[in-house]
Amino acid sequence: MDFGFDQRTEELRETLLDFMETHVYPAEPVFHHQLASLPDPWAWDSAPVVQELRDAARGRGLWNLFLPGEEGAGLTNLQYAPLAEISGRSLHLAPPAMNCAAPDTGNIEVLHMFGTEAQKKEWLEPLLEGEIRSAFAMTEPDVASSDATNIQLSIVRDGDDYVLNGRKWWITGAMNPNCQIFIVMGKTDPAAERHRQQSMILVPRDTPGLEVVRGMHVLGYDDHEHGGHAELRFSDVRVPASSLIGEEGGGFAMAQARLGPGRIHHCMRAIGTAERAIELMCARVDERVAFGRQLSEQGVIRDWIAESRVRLEQLRLLVLKTAWLMDTVGNKGAHTEIQAIKISTPSTVQWILDKAVQAHGAGGLSQDFPLASMFAGVRTLRLVDGPDEVHKNALAKAEIARQRSTREAR
Amino acid sequence: MDFGFDQRTEELRETLLDFMETHVYPAEPVFHHQLASLPDPWAWDSAPVVQELRDAARGRGLWNLFLPGEEGAGLTNLQYAPLAEISGRSLHLAPPAMNCAAPDTGNIEVLHMFGTEAQKKEWLEPLLEGEIRSAFAMTEPDVASSDATNIQLSIVRDGDDYVLNGRKWWITGAMNPNCQIFIVMGKTDPAAERHRQQSMILVPRDTPGLEVVRGMHVLGYDDHEHGGHAELRFSDVRVPASSLIGEEGGGFAMAQARLGPGRIHHCMRAIGTAERAIELMCARVDERVAFGRQLSEQGVIRDWIAESRVRLEQLRLLVLKTAWLMDTVGNKGAHTEIQAIKISTPSTVQWILDKAVQAHGAGGLSQDFPLASMFAGVRTLRLVDGPDEVHKNALAKAEIARQRSTREAR
Amino acid sequence: MDFGFDQRTEELRETLLDFMETHVYPAEPVFHHQLASLPDPWAWDSAPVVQELRDAARGRGLWNLFLPGEEGAGLTNLQYAPLAEISGRSLHLAPPAMNCAAPDTGNIEVLHMFGTEAQKKEWLEPLLEGEIRSAFAMTEPDVASSDATNIQLSIVRDGDDYVLNGRKWWITGAMNPNCQIFIVMGKTDPAAERHRQQSMILVPRDTPGLEVVRGMHVLGYDDHEHGGHAELRFSDVRVPASSLIGEEGGGFAMAQARLGPGRIHHCMRAIGTAERAIELMCARVDERVAFGRQLSEQGVIRDWIAESRVRLEQLRLLVLKTAWLMDTVGNKGAHTEIQAIKISTPSTVQWILDKAVQAHGAGGLSQDFPLASMFAGVRTLRLVDGPDEVHKNALAKAEIARQRSTREAR
Amino acid sequence: MDFGFDQRTEELRETLLDFMETHVYPAEPVFHHQLASLPDPWAWDSAPVVQELRDAARGRGLWNLFLPGEEGAGLTNLQYAPLAEISGRSLHLAPPAMNCAAPDTGNIEVLHMFGTEAQKKEWLEPLLEGEIRSAFAMTEPDVASSDATNIQLSIVRDGDDYVLNGRKWWITGAMNPNCQIFIVMGKTDPAAERHRQQSMILVPRDTPGLEVVRGMHVLGYDDHEHGGHAELRFSDVRVPASSLIGEEGGGFAMAQARLGPGRIHHCMRAIGTAERAIELMCARVDERVAFGRQLSEQGVIRDWIAESRVRLEQLRLLVLKTAWLMDTVGNKGAHTEIQAIKISTPSTVQWILDKAVQAHGAGGLSQDFPLASMFAGVRTLRLVDGPDEVHKNALAKAEIARQRSTREAR
Repeated sequence: MDFGFDQRTEELRETLLDFMETHVYPAEPVFHHQLASLPDPWAWDSAPVVQELRDAARGRGLWNLFLPGEEGAGLTNLQYAPLAEISGRSLHLAPPAMNCAAPDTGNIEVLHMFGTEAQKKEWLEPLLEGEIRSAFAMTEPDVASSDATNIQLSIVRDGDDYVLNGRKWWITGAMNPNCQIFIVMGKTDPAAERHRQQSMILVPRDTPGLEVVRGMHVLGYDDHEHGGHAELRFSDVRVPASSLIGEEGGGFAMAQARLGPGRIHHCMRAIGTAERAIELMCARVDERVAFGRQLSEQGVIRDWIAESRVRLEQLRLLVLKTAWLMDTVGNKGAHTEIQAIKISTPSTVQWILDKAVQAHGAGGLSQDFPLASMFAGVRTLRLVDGPDEVHKNALAKAEIARQRSTREAR
Repeated sequence: MDFGFDQRTEELRETLLDFMETHVYPAEPVFHHQLASLPDPWAWDSAPVVQELRDAARGRGLWNLFLPGEEGAGLTNLQYAPLAEISGRSLHLAPPAMNCAAPDTGNIEVLHMFGTEAQKKEWLEPLLEGEIRSAFAMTEPDVASSDATNIQLSIVRDGDDYVLNGRKWWITGAMNPNCQIFIVMGKTDPAAERHRQQSMILVPRDTPGLEVVRGMHVLGYDDHEHGGHAELRFSDVRVPASSLIGEEGGGFAMAQARLGPGRIHHCMRAIGTAERAIELMCARVDERVAFGRQLSEQGVIRDWIAESRVRLEQLRLLVLKTAWLMDTVGNKGAHTEIQAIKISTPSTVQWILDKAVQAHGAGGLSQDFPLASMFAGVRTLRLVDGPDEVHKNALAKAEIARQRSTREAR
Repeated sequence: MDFGFDQRTEELRETLLDFMETHVYPAEPVFHHQLASLPDPWAWDSAPVVQELRDAARGRGLWNLFLPGEEGAGLTNLQYAPLAEISGRSLHLAPPAMNCAAPDTGNIEVLHMFGTEAQKKEWLEPLLEGEIRSAFAMTEPDVASSDATNIQLSIVRDGDDYVLNGRKWWITGAMNPNCQIFIVMGKTDPAAERHRQQSMILVPRDTPGLEVVRGMHVLGYDDHEHGGHAELRFSDVRVPASSLIGEEGGGFAMAQARLGPGRIHHCMRAIGTAERAIELMCARVDERVAFGRQLSEQGVIRDWIAESRVRLEQLRLLVLKTAWLMDTVGNKGAHTEIQAIKISTPSTVQWILDKAVQAHGAGGLSQDFPLASMFAGVRTLRLVDGPDEVHKNALAKAEIARQRSTREAR
Repeated sequence: MDFGFDQRTEELRETLLDFMETHVYPAEPVFHHQLASLPDPWAWDSAPVVQELRDAARGRGLWNLFLPGEEGAGLTNLQYAPLAEISGRSLHLAPPAMNCAAPDTGNIEVLHMFGTEAQKKEWLEPLLEGEIRSAFAMTEPDVASSDATNIQLSIVRDGDDYVLNGRKWWITGAMNPNCQIFIVMGKTDPAAERHRQQSMILVPRDTPGLEVVRGMHVLGYDDHEHGGHAELRFSDVRVPASSLIGEEGGGFAMAQARLGPGRIHHCMRAIGTAERAIELMCARVDERVAFGRQLSEQGVIRDWIAESRVRLEQLRLLVLKTAWLMDTVGNKGAHTEIQAIKISTPSTVQWILDKAVQAHGAGGLSQDFPLASMFAGVRTLRLVDGPDEVHKNALAKAEIARQRSTREAR
């Protein structure tokens, strides 16, 4: 057992931390200023500072680090996790600067693992170059999104084409006009075995019949800083049969494969967000005086800061251990831990953000600090991929079964 | 001791509940639709449905009910409180329909109690008629707003005028162009005794030197539905000396007088909001199935609903008792309870809203349900009039002192 | 609506408060000293100070106040509730001094309402005189006690007798040799309708076949101060048929009737316990210095005290309202509220006791302060009459149904 | 970074797990039975089963594993920690069986590091053989025990002797007559620099003037199973000067050295206790039916189990990381983490125990399950070595300072 980072991780962390200080943090106000004057507010990646950051990141080797294997940086989940954390300190800028932003990362992984050569040529290459954006269209308005077998959008073979009909919502990134390709999850065979009914298929943005209906809001935010969350309508959307990823009925398995690393990334970035919040909270309470004493000397404030630190340290270790398990025993062996971090990350980070907001007074809820927007972001984590309660139920069921078999083995 | 409402309250409750069903709830989607097409998005009271509701409310005697005494409806705080609760079920429409919306209510009370005849003629009358809106400008960006003695905006006598210089923010309603009059709290005499330095003065919206800088956001919302929260800059703003309300140095005392009833209104409306959330939550869990069973039959959901009901019942009783104390022993005698409801209302209602959102899945955070906006609204209650922590500290200090003198008297 | 106590209640409160100061608190150390030297540690009511207190209480008219109607003091639930609260400040002494201690109170009510003249003569009279003690034997080790229809002890008619067989546990008071009579709940007709299978029957302590097996402990306490909690075994226990209370099959209904007022008493006494804890906590933090400042000036401590006060005020109002409902619309009309106070009292009071202990340091857990024993007592309240979770489930189910019918009526 | 145990740890874990199954768990009822019939209830280590377990443990090499270096097992903190956890599953038997029970472990470390040859010969050897027990006398009734510089007991040089006067309480193990030696912390030089006033000195149990006044209770338990918690009075207690451990003024530093590993042991054992509680809870809910469904299928119960698992996993990782830090950068480098585990262990484990009790119904609070006693034990952890609040305050102060210097370095 060893809690130190390895050499490669340490070096990349240093490079990235330096990049954050010299490039990313200074770019934050610039980005918001440029965003406000874009002709299309959703086209966030056309803000000049985004391209500048990308060039700078790439020049330092901070590019596509999430992607394992030869085409990527060759990092393990455990090596990449602490870098994801750091990028989470500036969630709107650092991940895209490094071409490591969701949902592109997951989509790249899917194409990388399951795409045909032609699909790779057409879509994976520009994604790896950071030229275009992508979306992953799974969640639907009418069914519980916590269970991928529920999805209803139909994908019907018709000659050399597939025809799609149905609705999707909360499709992150899809309001950005440069989000040129959607990986759509739907049902190809409603009669098949429950986990073999689903398939994934590529649908270019400009395909006739695909309508981007509106952007969903999250606690008042439209999240145009990263392309929003679209509601989509598919009306007889027709794509060639070669657009299918993998095989018919392989959708569920590919979604599961996509999920594991994405969970690590999400959680580590949320931890980075929490670190930024603690930083802001400590700065604030050091400069603010109330009732004759600095906030930083008041007991309740200290209680918040201590709890924040202690909870976050524990959470980070659990996420890192999960990454290690994925590297050593695979997604299946890490199943319980992947559930566990989905359960504990959102609530822990939300607690910290709530206190950081409170320490800032009313300003903490406003556009003058990033805290309110961070709060909205982490609040959604308690619901994406299914509400926390679903995961708790499943984890407990497995724990009870595990204990039962231990008892019976005695 | 008697926990039943009196006859007059029961009758008004019935009238109001009926008005909500027949007029207010049906008007909600209409209002949001009309709002979206207004030339000035801040001018919410120019939406036709608002005027229709006002006429209907007035026709039923549901007008200016908050105002005690002969000019108003003559209700006690205890009689008005349950009506305020009901109006909180549709926070953007019911209070303005009844001409009972903050901050107009507090401003009307101030003018009613302390205004000169000329001031009443010019401002109180159109406010009581619901023709104009008003704002109360107290909070400042650079000092802790939890202590009214901190305010810095200077009000200097210059011949027959007063000249104002300083900044304000979070001035609710002030983005609405029909918000024609501001009651501004500032310092007339920095050398006076601490609670005699402040004065209140009337400043018409169009006074030269008064700049409406921007609207503050709350968790992504600009709250244009009720006129937003403005940042204001006062640069040599000059008003005639007759604009002073009451006497020089009387500002703090008037602010205290304004505070008590306002606290009751806020808390009762928040309870109404929570009731609406419980209603929505119960409806949702009844219609939604997950993992083979209705949500309404799942233990965790039931735990939320039971806790919501039990917490809310207790809270309501405390607020009603506070209203009764204000009626029977006055604001001073009700001091501890006024603090107590400021402490417990926001956290209780926020807890309920959080669960209601969670029971709705991702939709609960979106524009498709009122819950997210309600959450943002109640979250601010933990900070307005000073963060909860300030009030807890003060209440505990008094409790400790009270216990000390009881011990010493033994 | 009126939150003031009536004249009679105010007078009794004053008499009782004075009695507490002059008699009960001074008797506490005496009682514990006398207890330690009793030949039988369970025979708490043979401690001389107990008899002295009883005489003093009776002399002041503080006797059998819980009993409604002519035989008792004629108080309503709402009038008695605040007196029960005060008695809870010294839980081991004040209630028995006033002949208002559980479980005698409930047993007296049952005999009073349903007993025959002979039963009243033999058992009710000495109980009303405080000469003997009684127990209520309902809970059983092998079934969930939250549902009275689960009970298994069999009561079989045999000629002029009934014969009892079965086990009971957690029978409070029954370790005291002066606990001379048990009201035993059992099954007379397993074939009857579910709520008509149970009956109550009187069993004198010395009946052959009735074995007092042992005393149950609660977190290390055997609670000999009020007669412990016995495990009982009934082996062919034979009593004359005239021992039946009410009619065969009437047990469930009588248990329900017994429950309502008992719930009010329990909750109000727990509130009194919490008030005592707040008192001790305030005294402690005023005298203790740590890290250079009095505990009473430290923010976290103040937060505990403020939360304690605010939570307790709300809880008390809910219990009082429940008492009022029982007086005005009966037990059935107060059903939801009776559940609600069962849910919120234990957790609220436990929270307060936990903080009071913590403020006392390690001493707070020891025999040097009453807090640890109070904590153990209130912890059991989360389980007696069924765990809180059962009541939450039931209350939520009713709330969901209520909301459903409101929706459908629209 | 590597989250796997090393080879040696894995082997010892297996040996210990097997020893628990074959020897310790079966011995639990035997121990309680033997305890009840001991002539002196405090002399727990004279129960025959204790000696049998010791022989069995020693025969398997499970002896003095906590002691680093050659005299001990040569394990690092990180290697010993998971063994301490396992021993915590049977807290009264496994640690003493392995001669790894507090406070002997800490006392052995002190003598091992700082004792003279004569002291080692006289006291360390029999302690390492498990022939006698020891106590560590630091906490005092009149001062806050969270700060070792507060202690008042005086140690005055008088010729060739030292003379001790003062009081101690909560001296764990000291009620056991076989607890033959006390390490007493007192003040030798009140005029010295604050951290150089204290010394440690050896006082044999039978020294004249040393009075064992009474045993302190914890939530009703006297903890005779491990020698209780004594109050001690020192009245002119005279010991030879050679009884001093280390040098005069070295007490504080030695106490700090003793603290670090002890904290790890305490926390890991508490984690083992929590694992036992989860085991019991899972077994219980699997066998119990309420309202027609197994408890293990009810949502609220599952929520408890999931939260228990997730919180405990995080906590364990933090404690293990702390052990690793102590091994790699020393106690000082691990300072923040040592505080952090003191903050999070008691509250986390108490939460789990509370739920395990609740899942057991009233029985969970009784002597029929170990849960209530475990609860009492862990509740004290929130107070020993100073209340959690003190550690939170200190940790936050350091965090704020660390953030401040990071900001200033930018």
